[in-house]
Amino acid sequence: MIPALKPRNADYEQAVGAYVAAQNYLTMLGVESTVVAPGRVDYRVHFRPDLGQQDGLFHGGVVGGLAEAVMGASAFTLVEPGANVVGASYRLDLLAPGEGPVMTARGTVIKSGRTLIVCRADVIVTKDDGEETLAAIAQGTMAVIPPRS
Amino acid sequence: MIPALKPRNADYEQAVGAYVAAQNYLTMLGVESTVVAPGRVDYRVHFRPDLGQQDGLFHGGVVGGLAEAVMGASAFTLVEPGANVVGASYRLDLLAPGEGPVMTARGTVIKSGRTLIVCRADVIVTKDDGEETLAAIAQGTMAVIPPRS
Amino acid sequence: MIPALKPRNADYEQAVGAYVAAQNYLTMLGVESTVVAPGRVDYRVHFRPDLGQQDGLFHGGVVGGLAEAVMGASAFTLVEPGANVVGASYRLDLLAPGEGPVMTARGTVIKSGRTLIVCRADVIVTKDDGEETLAAIAQGTMAVIPPRS
Amino acid sequence: MIPALKPRNADYEQAVGAYVAAQNYLTMLGVESTVVAPGRVDYRVHFRPDLGQQDGLFHGGVVGGLAEAVMGASAFTLVEPGANVVGASYRLDLLAPGEGPVMTARGTVIKSGRTLIVCRADVIVTKDDGEETLAAIAQGTMAVIPPRS
Repeated sequence: MIPALKPRNADYEQAVGAYVAAQNYLTMLGVESTVVAPGRVDYRVHFRPDLGQQDGLFHGGVVGGLAEAVMGASAFTLVEPGANVVGASYRLDLLAPGEGPVMTARGTVIKSGRTLIVCRADVIVTKDDGEETLAAIAQGTMAVIPPRS
Repeated sequence: MIPALKPRNADYEQAVGAYVAAQNYLTMLGVESTVVAPGRVDYRVHFRPDLGQQDGLFHGGVVGGLAEAVMGASAFTLVEPGANVVGASYRLDLLAPGEGPVMTARGTVIKSGRTLIVCRADVIVTKDDGEETLAAIAQGTMAVIPPRS
Repeated sequence: MIPALKPRNADYEQAVGAYVAAQNYLTMLGVESTVVAPGRVDYRVHFRPDLGQQDGLFHGGVVGGLAEAVMGASAFTLVEPGANVVGASYRLDLLAPGEGPVMTARGTVIKSGRTLIVCRADVIVTKDDGEETLAAIAQGTMAVIPPRS
Repeated sequence: MIPALKPRNADYEQAVGAYVAAQNYLTMLGVESTVVAPGRVDYRVHFRPDLGQQDGLFHGGVVGGLAEAVMGASAFTLVEPGANVVGASYRLDLLAPGEGPVMTARGTVIKSGRTLIVCRADVIVTKDDGEETLAAIAQGTMAVIPPRS
């Protein structure tokens, strides 16, 4: 039922790379893009003490920020060259503390409109032995800023 | 119509201070509590390049993280000694880019239940000349973890 | 900090009346507009058994539908003649069962943009003796459909 | 990664039937349960003019109410005998007007906790020729009310 998503920018992979690199906050968190496909981006972050909360686990602010950012990047894969994407609104549900050294946020575009792109994201925390916990889920709307003509 | 909110912990101010200090991520962001009252907390952050996005403004991940954290702290002012508060879910609407060196998140408890506390937050960015922009609004549910008996 | 909201349609009150009347579902619920001002609309509904849930109180679907509809109407007060408003997304928090014969949803525009209008709503249930309960709060984004040229 | 969901009530199908039948508002809408499985419920509604908005399509209030209700029923499949489920909060994104005579809301439990159950829902509108439109998506938290002891 979800139609195949076609990028309008042939160089979308390179564009996403530049989009991620331009955001200092993501660089500071140590975000890596591990999947970049039309309407699908995965971000990965490694735990550091300064990203933690009172129990030494990933802080909710990092979880939510990563979920929102990966929805933005997923939307960004589909916009035309020169367009930008900014977060409009999202909801985050925190499901479990997420104990483990690696956090992955998986963004997916559900509906790609001309001015709004609706996405979902799942945030998974992985332990050293590979055990995964679904730490959070998100749903959000990204706004498309058309290229300056 | 909103009943006056009474703290169940006489030392709630000190407890909130310890709660904030224990969260490394908030320390890393440089969060200061500028208001702490029953059901009301303000957090303030100063801009740094590593908290920015592609246009040199506060990154949405910092905006959302601060909004969620201040709702958690607002809820925390009302719980009994030894109890904890964790974010359950929230919605953030980003309204304006928020250009300015100081960001303030104002959290307010709307309904304080035994296991869930519902809050709202406004995030304001202030320029050097004092001009304020409402950058984001949030609404969320915090979960109360009772003291271990 | 919230700038005064100016309607772009001099006949906005009449336009809102027509907007409400055109929505059969609102007519079926028995919705009355009790406040119509720029960026501010109140809707009122009287309890009927067919609007109830298992305990004889207003069903959550009616609460949420009324909150979304009143945010749409609040946004509609601000659009130019011939434009339309449709809901894009919202969050509803249900706070209390809301026992009483009259439910009022109060919509307020927080930020009026060209294509998106962000609103909040409070839903209050009133008993025969005038006692009010804050039954739900909402936050949402309405999308503006420009006039067909 | 999502663990298999086991009902704690052997008669959960019958319990869901009674839960739906007890909600007058759902009866008034004409809701039928077309799928009832552990953590999974589908609701179906047929279009009637009194469920419509200004363009003769399903009103957003019906779409949102159905999405919330089906998430509640999905959660209800998993609770112990005598427990109840009430909506705590949800987000709805409206994606497309949804033109067609039949609307189906598909609820899925994502995380089943002791006091909170987190769900997602998709709302699909189907035309006479079978063409489906994804009209809305939702994410929400249902609260479990334990049996009175």
